[in-house]
Amino acid sequence: MAGSTIGNIFKITTWGESHGKGIGVVIDGCPAGLPLCEEDIQKYLDRRRPGQSSFSTQRQESDSVRILSGTFEGKTTGTPISLMIANEDQRSRDYGDIATYYRPGHADYTYDAKYGFRDYRGGGRSSGRETIGRVAAGAIAAKILAHFGITFLTYSKAIGPVTIDTTRFDAEEIYCNPLYMPDAAAAAEAADYLNRCKAETNSAGGIVECIISGVPAGIGDPVFDKLDANLAKAIFSIGAVKGFEIGDGFAVAQATGLTNNDAFFTDSEGKIEKATNHAGGILGGISDGSAIILRAAFKPTPSIASTQRTVNKSGENIDINIKGRHDPIIVPRAVVVVESMAAITLLDAMLQNTTATMESLEKIYG
Amino acid sequence: MAGSTIGNIFKITTWGESHGKGIGVVIDGCPAGLPLCEEDIQKYLDRRRPGQSSFSTQRQESDSVRILSGTFEGKTTGTPISLMIANEDQRSRDYGDIATYYRPGHADYTYDAKYGFRDYRGGGRSSGRETIGRVAAGAIAAKILAHFGITFLTYSKAIGPVTIDTTRFDAEEIYCNPLYMPDAAAAAEAADYLNRCKAETNSAGGIVECIISGVPAGIGDPVFDKLDANLAKAIFSIGAVKGFEIGDGFAVAQATGLTNNDAFFTDSEGKIEKATNHAGGILGGISDGSAIILRAAFKPTPSIASTQRTVNKSGENIDINIKGRHDPIIVPRAVVVVESMAAITLLDAMLQNTTATMESLEKIYG
Amino acid sequence: MAGSTIGNIFKITTWGESHGKGIGVVIDGCPAGLPLCEEDIQKYLDRRRPGQSSFSTQRQESDSVRILSGTFEGKTTGTPISLMIANEDQRSRDYGDIATYYRPGHADYTYDAKYGFRDYRGGGRSSGRETIGRVAAGAIAAKILAHFGITFLTYSKAIGPVTIDTTRFDAEEIYCNPLYMPDAAAAAEAADYLNRCKAETNSAGGIVECIISGVPAGIGDPVFDKLDANLAKAIFSIGAVKGFEIGDGFAVAQATGLTNNDAFFTDSEGKIEKATNHAGGILGGISDGSAIILRAAFKPTPSIASTQRTVNKSGENIDINIKGRHDPIIVPRAVVVVESMAAITLLDAMLQNTTATMESLEKIYG
Amino acid sequence: MAGSTIGNIFKITTWGESHGKGIGVVIDGCPAGLPLCEEDIQKYLDRRRPGQSSFSTQRQESDSVRILSGTFEGKTTGTPISLMIANEDQRSRDYGDIATYYRPGHADYTYDAKYGFRDYRGGGRSSGRETIGRVAAGAIAAKILAHFGITFLTYSKAIGPVTIDTTRFDAEEIYCNPLYMPDAAAAAEAADYLNRCKAETNSAGGIVECIISGVPAGIGDPVFDKLDANLAKAIFSIGAVKGFEIGDGFAVAQATGLTNNDAFFTDSEGKIEKATNHAGGILGGISDGSAIILRAAFKPTPSIASTQRTVNKSGENIDINIKGRHDPIIVPRAVVVVESMAAITLLDAMLQNTTATMESLEKIYG
Repeated sequence: MAGSTIGNIFKITTWGESHGKGIGVVIDGCPAGLPLCEEDIQKYLDRRRPGQSSFSTQRQESDSVRILSGTFEGKTTGTPISLMIANEDQRSRDYGDIATYYRPGHADYTYDAKYGFRDYRGGGRSSGRETIGRVAAGAIAAKILAHFGITFLTYSKAIGPVTIDTTRFDAEEIYCNPLYMPDAAAAAEAADYLNRCKAETNSAGGIVECIISGVPAGIGDPVFDKLDANLAKAIFSIGAVKGFEIGDGFAVAQATGLTNNDAFFTDSEGKIEKATNHAGGILGGISDGSAIILRAAFKPTPSIASTQRTVNKSGENIDINIKGRHDPIIVPRAVVVVESMAAITLLDAMLQNTTATMESLEKIYG
Repeated sequence: MAGSTIGNIFKITTWGESHGKGIGVVIDGCPAGLPLCEEDIQKYLDRRRPGQSSFSTQRQESDSVRILSGTFEGKTTGTPISLMIANEDQRSRDYGDIATYYRPGHADYTYDAKYGFRDYRGGGRSSGRETIGRVAAGAIAAKILAHFGITFLTYSKAIGPVTIDTTRFDAEEIYCNPLYMPDAAAAAEAADYLNRCKAETNSAGGIVECIISGVPAGIGDPVFDKLDANLAKAIFSIGAVKGFEIGDGFAVAQATGLTNNDAFFTDSEGKIEKATNHAGGILGGISDGSAIILRAAFKPTPSIASTQRTVNKSGENIDINIKGRHDPIIVPRAVVVVESMAAITLLDAMLQNTTATMESLEKIYG
Repeated sequence: MAGSTIGNIFKITTWGESHGKGIGVVIDGCPAGLPLCEEDIQKYLDRRRPGQSSFSTQRQESDSVRILSGTFEGKTTGTPISLMIANEDQRSRDYGDIATYYRPGHADYTYDAKYGFRDYRGGGRSSGRETIGRVAAGAIAAKILAHFGITFLTYSKAIGPVTIDTTRFDAEEIYCNPLYMPDAAAAAEAADYLNRCKAETNSAGGIVECIISGVPAGIGDPVFDKLDANLAKAIFSIGAVKGFEIGDGFAVAQATGLTNNDAFFTDSEGKIEKATNHAGGILGGISDGSAIILRAAFKPTPSIASTQRTVNKSGENIDINIKGRHDPIIVPRAVVVVESMAAITLLDAMLQNTTATMESLEKIYG
Repeated sequence: MAGSTIGNIFKITTWGESHGKGIGVVIDGCPAGLPLCEEDIQKYLDRRRPGQSSFSTQRQESDSVRILSGTFEGKTTGTPISLMIANEDQRSRDYGDIATYYRPGHADYTYDAKYGFRDYRGGGRSSGRETIGRVAAGAIAAKILAHFGITFLTYSKAIGPVTIDTTRFDAEEIYCNPLYMPDAAAAAEAADYLNRCKAETNSAGGIVECIISGVPAGIGDPVFDKLDANLAKAIFSIGAVKGFEIGDGFAVAQATGLTNNDAFFTDSEGKIEKATNHAGGILGGISDGSAIILRAAFKPTPSIASTQRTVNKSGENIDINIKGRHDPIIVPRAVVVVESMAAITLLDAMLQNTTATMESLEKIYG
């Protein structure tokens, strides 16, 4: 339980450090017969690839994925799919300074406290590169979900103080600006804000929102494995996430039962629907057939070039200036990571749901 | 994976419905040698017992716990601890109407969608009574943590629009008002608000905050089993939670690296500390030795006596008026549930941490 | 992971000690919609109930099961099924002597070594009564399997040196003799042998065989969760089992490829079958459509009235004479325990198999 | 749960097919601070490498391991250790015939039944090469165990009808003959037997025995996670195993309580020991401090060049002659696989045991 595995049926295990030989993921439990090639995965990885705008690290990596096992003649075989992405940009530079002190806002101190020492090269296992394995697995999960009509719309809802204006919401805009915002005006304003942050050797946070459409009602398990609980874990396991919401989220604290309850109604085709969706598509931990809406708050990149106070391993109070190629904001690149973790979690819940009733068993064994 | 088990080493499994024979929990993995009697557990259960104020359901239950297994001569044996709390108030009333329609904001529709039918008596498994097992297990977890100097301070931070004033924060006040608020003035104001809600046959939400002190640095696992990710899941698995935060939570989205990073320093005793605690005690998913701070947003009780629109099982659009003995707010009774889930999660992380290094193994087997 | 839970989807957790308040099991993951009443379970428990012949302990227990949760209007709801069997025969006798020394062949010493102390009343958690929870859960698993045409034939294949003659095999005889042997002559001979053992205050071992018919081909997972591997674990987790075989078992060590390979052929209805079944119905960890055949070797009851050498807790070498109501052989009562563990394991494998292919997912979600 | 992961704390996940890009394993949960280099692992892999005698396949593979992650400056970091062994001998030969029919004794039919199709190149995932990942992980587990004084002695106990004579037992002889037998005379006789098998295009089975010394008393969990139950699963998950025993194994069926019970005594140093070890070092699922003794029966290699009857995918009954480079016996190369699975299982049980008592927790957190 060292924590690098998630999922019960669609189970993924990631490995790798920022400046080691590579990053990888093993996906066990992927159903057999899914057409799968490297391009299916690469297009997801490309969404988090560095160096694509002035707002992400200038580290140059192609992040090319190789499928090492689990497919045959272009289809998944049902056995483990091993994916590897080699680290290309392992400059043999001097990490000596980072090795000796604890960067504020990073996991340096806590890794040392837990393990007695750490791989300090580029953050080692706590680096953002760790999310590559998640995205590679998420691409596969999303492909299966798409087969069953389930689609994702994920974007930056807020960058620092700049929040999208929902009246200007334009899904096609998301891929037209480097910040993945569905609002061109907000994206422009956010870019200005980020340029000011960069000028001040500072960094920014933000909010990612994900809307999942087409989820059938009835997915998720009661009590501890509620769909929202498992989404909360999956999203909160992404480094830098400090808050998570479903539906109206924290706003419900000030709502009343009358305003917060979503009335059910039968639509013209006889389908049961909700008149509103404050619940964000999940009731009692189980999907209700409406869109699932979730949000995650990301903290500002902790690596900033400004002078900071900290402690070195000898316990001395020192001033530091962190060098390196860091993102002034991680939100845009985190968009696909949130989508990936949501896809992995939802697929796993759907796979678990196949045995919920005797009736569904009869479809398989009857 | 029907979802009624949580934890890897300190593993709990709950069972029971609102109007069945009782509610129970089996705790497997509790270390041997812990002094444990029913009173240790009862005092936690009493914190969530109904009928203690005008703001909770008038259902009368003593919620008395019985230890059925796992202790011998007053100490835990290391084998499963089975706890049962009988349901006493199972009025044989007519549930016929609830059986036929889907209450807005409840899990009625989603249970039917998943299972094909449901135990509709008082919400069955989706009832708030399900949390009794969590609290009973949480009492044991908290007792072990207290043995190692770890303590919890949990309270209502906000009731509807009324938030505590931190300058008036008084921990002793928490148990002096029925709303478990650490601010007498806010509690009085919140009580007024709730009385207005009741008068309008409406209900309210709120925010629970939990501060955990004394946690050593180094607890939690990287990647998927981050301590905050597991806390997120545990807290989000409580019915009615729609948002979860650690430390500054959603506020980090608007912070900058300079304001959000917590500087490390060595204190006069040579201990490494943080000058601030925006992180809420967790960095990279691992505890940093500061207090762990978490918050959960609870939605307003969905059961309200006002007329609501919904659908019955025949698909007809109808108006309903829900009768019964419902809490106008669940936040005060949820305080101990949040604390319990946090205790269970933290203890499990600490138990998993005993094998993190060869050095710790040597303490056991050397 | 204190070890009282088994299964991934059909997951059972047992609790209880020999002389505590009772024995119980929580079954999580049972599909909704299965008709289930206490009598379904009781008939399995009655097969292991003590006091039914001169060859089992004279302890008097009705072992009556109560369903505490998880059913509604006679059907399973998909939520945890909690079953409890009260201990009735908890004589308040003096266990003082057993508390002070380690009985040979029992778990007294190992429990003390692990936990520092133990519940010594009647063996506590290591008692054979622990298997009651397994049988109660096994009854439910077997009922689901029967719905899909899968049936069990389980019996004593050998009692001490007396082995059944397969030319006299008579399935109907199994329930006609107290030793559950499918061969009346062998049963009579074994009874004579056991009477001699009893006269000599000695005890006997034996072999249980289980044949599972109707299992479709394709059940079980490759590599670590092979169907035979999970059966091996499940059966070996029954106290007193020292050996486990599938198909020809240990005899394969002396076979050759030519004699051991089972030729495939297509029968007159176009179904693929095997001409022989040396494999015992499993190839590569996956069922092949033939009958699954397994065997378990049980050691002689360690509690014997003869004088034995052992050590007390002070480390003194002493002679002991164990008193009490012990079975001279546990094999007949273990028959239903083997069947139960096999049923639980097979059902869990079948439930996991519903997501093996995209095609099966399409049956559920297409 | 597609079955390629085993272990709870020391958790391994294997991947790869016989004729894919390679074979790998990810080890999560290895304690930090263990000195580890590729040579530690390579020496285990070399024990199962093909082509080392006339009795193993002539396939030429160096089976060189690469550590891709999880170590830093020569020590494990506590994060996932990813190991990969490239497949070198992937001859682009014609597999067309194997693709069209089901080889007797192989998993061809069952994989097709489960997944709808299979990677037929060299057996794909069901190939013996799958065990490479097990051995690589086993090398690490064994290194940790050795640090705590636990050692393994594993060998071929029987090859076909030739069993070692225990009066000639010579541990040093094990590595002096290609059959890994601790008895030179038996090894010579077995070699003759195997040469006759080869001459007749036939194959042989056998028995592997493993003796684990130095295990402290108290390891293993009661009920389902008994140490012997988990060993049974781990060993039975090795392809071709059809029987498993602990201690006296199947012989206990004919023993009596008087002969089978092992008397305890206190030795001259005050240590509690057993006068005999019929139990094989485990009582009630928990280690008793004596040597753990286990045995596994392996079936004859199913791939034989003799003509065999089988069925093709069109359902036609056909005669086949399997070509290729197959081991006439797998027992000698399976010796290190058995040792590896035993090491992985025992280490995992020891890691789980660190939280068995409040006293052991105090050693870590007190």
